[in-house]
Amino acid sequence: MPSKEQGWLEQRVIRIDDAEDMRLAPYRNVRERDLVGREGRFIAEGKVVLNVLLANAGFAVESLLVLENRLTGLTGQIGLCPADVPVYSVSRTVMDAIAGFPMHRGILAVGRRSAPCSASQLLDALPEKSLAVVLCGISNHDNMGSIFRNAAAFEADCLLMDETSCDPLYRKAIRVSVGAALKVPFAREGSIEDLVGKLQQAGFDIYALSPSGRETIYTAQPGARTALLLGTEGEGLPKALMQKLRTVRIPMSQAFDSLNVATASGIALSRFSRFSGV
Amino acid sequence: MPSKEQGWLEQRVIRIDDAEDMRLAPYRNVRERDLVGREGRFIAEGKVVLNVLLANAGFAVESLLVLENRLTGLTGQIGLCPADVPVYSVSRTVMDAIAGFPMHRGILAVGRRSAPCSASQLLDALPEKSLAVVLCGISNHDNMGSIFRNAAAFEADCLLMDETSCDPLYRKAIRVSVGAALKVPFAREGSIEDLVGKLQQAGFDIYALSPSGRETIYTAQPGARTALLLGTEGEGLPKALMQKLRTVRIPMSQAFDSLNVATASGIALSRFSRFSGV
Repeated sequence: MPSKEQGWLEQRVIRIDDAEDMRLAPYRNVRERDLVGREGRFIAEGKVVLNVLLANAGFAVESLLVLENRLTGLTGQIGLCPADVPVYSVSRTVMDAIAGFPMHRGILAVGRRSAPCSASQLLDALPEKSLAVVLCGISNHDNMGSIFRNAAAFEADCLLMDETSCDPLYRKAIRVSVGAALKVPFAREGSIEDLVGKLQQAGFDIYALSPSGRETIYTAQPGARTALLLGTEGEGLPKALMQKLRTVRIPMSQAFDSLNVATASGIALSRFSRFSGV
Repeated sequence: MPSKEQGWLEQRVIRIDDAEDMRLAPYRNVRERDLVGREGRFIAEGKVVLNVLLANAGFAVESLLVLENRLTGLTGQIGLCPADVPVYSVSRTVMDAIAGFPMHRGILAVGRRSAPCSASQLLDALPEKSLAVVLCGISNHDNMGSIFRNAAAFEADCLLMDETSCDPLYRKAIRVSVGAALKVPFAREGSIEDLVGKLQQAGFDIYALSPSGRETIYTAQPGARTALLLGTEGEGLPKALMQKLRTVRIPMSQAFDSLNVATASGIALSRFSRFSGV
């Protein structure tokens, strides 16, 4: 019944023709900056990411911004938003003017994280058999997003990262993660040494991934609670920390520069996850 | 002997102060477009990529463009260039004006590929035991570059790609590959069906990677000559082709979007390469 649906959509959606309208302020220039004064809020782009956002009770949607010609294709998503969540509809011209660049995705959302978990809270909630990913100094949003995507693909139970790592809820990281940053539970806090201490207390075998690792990912035998620790491509993990942990390497050519950290995370997670059958 | 080195550099380097100088034309606006009228030429960025370029006899350097304050750190590379290769030196202002954006890397080069190999030539030259990567419709330069990087890390012997795949010698693909696009032999030609036919004639076991693959990468037993076939993330490989080939999957969550194709290449190559010890 397209006419009924059309009527419902028209009632639900707020049409905005002025790119300067204050209601659109959170969406302004999202390419150049992230949300100012974010307070747990973030920008989610695209239908796939929106689906993840809507499916996770730990996040709320504050508003939607939809290209007018994409409205009918997004009826299901709009219907899943609580009635008090404003749904704004704009033309292509207004959309591009707001975003500050040609915005190919037809939908943006402002989301909000209820309350960040602490690493201890996350670890307390994990099952007996679990796989954690731990990041130190990952400051590139592409890498952060890719690592989340891989963590979701191999069903890692959580991600912990030190405070020098970048925010997984930055727009680009969410986009590259294909929504995994809104799916895999994470905590970002303190120093890597503190995080390692908490994991050890929780009974995790911690494997630090490094080109100079003593075991390979194919010979290592991960236990029931396994944590995979990843550092930056350039500097790697702090030497003093490495000496206290088991280290694993991805066996590869000696003649070529090491792998990208996100690719390395995928290779090691594939091997360490329950899916490899090891 | 810094003074002697300084004198040598001063003689070797051509200082240019005018961003409009015609000798810099190949470097103009490299962000927005690649080289016009390329004829096998390409832009290489950064010291690491330049080192790969200089080490490969299949490529020549046509000219170098170096930031003035990076000259002394690049003495070795400049010394490796034939004496008739012009080395231009510019200020930061001129460099950014030429490139069309803040160019963080201190060195650019125009390189040239001697003559492209055909797939048949490449295959004829391979050893009895070899690993090939075959690409169908990979049109994203980031993915292309990452796949080359992974192919180099796991010492794949060559890359073959159909003509719908993008050019690995595009500036961004070379940069993301960390130079691997200038290291791993490749051929780009014709249809994927033709490439598969040539591989079969050359005795390759072809494994098509797909989320619906019948075997997993952990149960498959690659033979002496193994080819890993990768398609796009969205459409994947042509169904008619898949039905004629062995298919393998990376075992992973059913609840999440599949992996990025470059990450998938890394996971499968790690497993299929000689380094995994399988």
